Amino acid sequence: MEACTKITELLLRLREKKPLIHHITNYVTANDCANITLAIGASPVMADDINEVKDITTMSSALALNLGTLNEQRLGSMLTAAQKANELSIPIILDPVGVGATTFRLEAATRIISEVRLSVIRGNLSEIKALYGLNSKSKGVDTAEILGTNHSGDLEAAYVARALACELNASVAITGAIDLITNGKTLFKVENGHPLMSRVTGTGCMCTSLIASYLGAGGDSLTAALAGVVSMGIAGDSFQGTGSLKVYIHDAIYLLSPDNIVKRGKIVEI
Amino acid sequence: MEACTKITELLLRLREKKPLIHHITNYVTANDCANITLAIGASPVMADDINEVKDITTMSSALALNLGTLNEQRLGSMLTAAQKANELSIPIILDPVGVGATTFRLEAATRIISEVRLSVIRGNLSEIKALYGLNSKSKGVDTAEILGTNHSGDLEAAYVARALACELNASVAITGAIDLITNGKTLFKVENGHPLMSRVTGTGCMCTSLIASYLGAGGDSLTAALAGVVSMGIAGDSFQGTGSLKVYIHDAIYLLSPDNIVKRGKIVEI
Amino acid sequence: MEACTKITELLLRLREKKPLIHHITNYVTANDCANITLAIGASPVMADDINEVKDITTMSSALALNLGTLNEQRLGSMLTAAQKANELSIPIILDPVGVGATTFRLEAATRIISEVRLSVIRGNLSEIKALYGLNSKSKGVDTAEILGTNHSGDLEAAYVARALACELNASVAITGAIDLITNGKTLFKVENGHPLMSRVTGTGCMCTSLIASYLGAGGDSLTAALAGVVSMGIAGDSFQGTGSLKVYIHDAIYLLSPDNIVKRGKIVEI
Repeated sequence: MEACTKITELLLRLREKKPLIHHITNYVTANDCANITLAIGASPVMADDINEVKDITTMSSALALNLGTLNEQRLGSMLTAAQKANELSIPIILDPVGVGATTFRLEAATRIISEVRLSVIRGNLSEIKALYGLNSKSKGVDTAEILGTNHSGDLEAAYVARALACELNASVAITGAIDLITNGKTLFKVENGHPLMSRVTGTGCMCTSLIASYLGAGGDSLTAALAGVVSMGIAGDSFQGTGSLKVYIHDAIYLLSPDNIVKRGKIVEI
Repeated sequence: MEACTKITELLLRLREKKPLIHHITNYVTANDCANITLAIGASPVMADDINEVKDITTMSSALALNLGTLNEQRLGSMLTAAQKANELSIPIILDPVGVGATTFRLEAATRIISEVRLSVIRGNLSEIKALYGLNSKSKGVDTAEILGTNHSGDLEAAYVARALACELNASVAITGAIDLITNGKTLFKVENGHPLMSRVTGTGCMCTSLIASYLGAGGDSLTAALAGVVSMGIAGDSFQGTGSLKVYIHDAIYLLSPDNIVKRGKIVEI
Repeated sequence: MEACTKITELLLRLREKKPLIHHITNYVTANDCANITLAIGASPVMADDINEVKDITTMSSALALNLGTLNEQRLGSMLTAAQKANELSIPIILDPVGVGATTFRLEAATRIISEVRLSVIRGNLSEIKALYGLNSKSKGVDTAEILGTNHSGDLEAAYVARALACELNASVAITGAIDLITNGKTLFKVENGHPLMSRVTGTGCMCTSLIASYLGAGGDSLTAALAGVVSMGIAGDSFQGTGSLKVYIHDAIYLLSPDNIVKRGKIVEI
């Protein structure tokens, strides 16, 4: 209950502050990340050119680094932006997408971890284990070892999350069928969400954007990580809001008729 | 009423001509821009490599330049494509996304404006003010000063829009809670749209694609800008069309069963 | 009926194997391709940096190369990944998006075809004709000559598909109002799908992802191509699944309230 109170207070603060969240992220889910950031009440900015990332980070309240579709240019921009964020005490979240899959990504993540002070790391179990230096059964970015499938695996996950959090002095969130969130001391388990979510790309990236939004609202790293994970989990149900609106906009343009324009256009010549 | 007549005639011409619209744009909203261009009845092509932009522009009826997720390569491609468009009298629209946020984008926009003859510029109030050389309270790309929040601000906006339009001999559209569209002489105010639209990423970019589509259909810059803005505003309501179809396609693939294939497959061996 | 049996068996195998599909693709429809791959039951990975494509291909069951928003870097990554795939006998599908539109894309496709052993090529009629060396009335990437509009055109299309399939020892799928699929000997016609699908960007790219998923499940090139095309065609109808879920997630985050969090959050401190 106390956790819920902290989260709800942070949500209200987020919606009042509308923090700007700088994303340096992949091109596959960038649109979803921008929309989920707007949906929660924050303001996204995606910018990854080395010429402007410092300017963008400087005006932001949090920085989200996502390793999907990584390349060397974007990695350079991440390190530059992160250094600026550290200088200005702007919190940073790292989403180590597919870090167990290639040497390139593991080296990139290792470099970020060694050069940058992070507030939160969010990944699936394979990714967090790879970051911690364990071999993992990673297979791509969406298929991975899953928390909640057996007890001894879950105990190992809790151990790894806590150990990584202590090592980096950050909060770590492992998301999956169940989610674990820890700052190295306190450990939360979250049981929201739906198995179908693993069949939609970007649910992990969007969760990272939500955590970044809560960080940008001023939450401590543990509360922000917990708030992001539980918000994403609750979102597995169905309501009507900004997601439908995007669909409706495309529908309405398709159905636009001269009659619509004449009857519904509100044009005033001044 | 006269404005509505011009717009409806242009819409019908657009649907008959199906103009090809060359977009050099950001990776966050490229999918939405392609889909809205198809929805209105035009045909999008996204291409940003320096090796092919001239070929693509040459076969297009309008060119849309969008500064989101800008980098130096894409800026070079924009200038190359725009020069070709000017040679061939193909109309160009500039969407100066986040131009007030970084020096890099402001310099890029300034360079485009000085080297290229534009037909339309569409942005939010902060962006248009930044382009005009005024300091603005820009904060990211989605949060910005908003038209329609106070009278003296709106008067200033109308002044800036007109002045920029005269300076560049182009039409200027400032979109927000209310929208202003001007060619420097005539000034229209549009009151369509819904506050929720500001919580969906890419509504500005999509409006730019619609204006580009109307330009590609042969509309003069003022009518095309007005048509795009009012079309987007009307789209804030809900119908069923191409937006839902994309959702349905993903749903149906998820639900695809052997039974579906046997009962619904229409396969003829020849 | 025999074709349907083969497809349904392959679908079941796909869902059991969950093959990993390496996409090197454009940024416009990458999100749709990832989601359709998940929806059919496979696992997508998008990665295009030269430093990691070999690693990713090596762990994948099929490789999809898509020429949309092509640039020289990505072309280099495609050739590197494809060479590795050929070494390891991992099947490759080529989607020659807009290949008739620019010299750059045609040369890229020609280079891929000459250096790489392909299993399937899927394109619209203009693209396949351009690949075969015929001039075509290509105009952009979405507007193209359409199969099924006249009988002599369809006969020519069948001829070209068969000839290209024989030349490359691969299966060729031409998709449009009707679809033709051939391995050079057997030729199938598929009559599923809906005209509205041509008004949604990425339906071709998504079809390619589906064929890649069926290839990754172990299907022979003809059955995989036929399975992908008929699956996509059937998807033109409306059900509820992963497509709606993405919409719902955005809606739910927008509607997230303190009350939701307290009532629906399932948080356990351990």
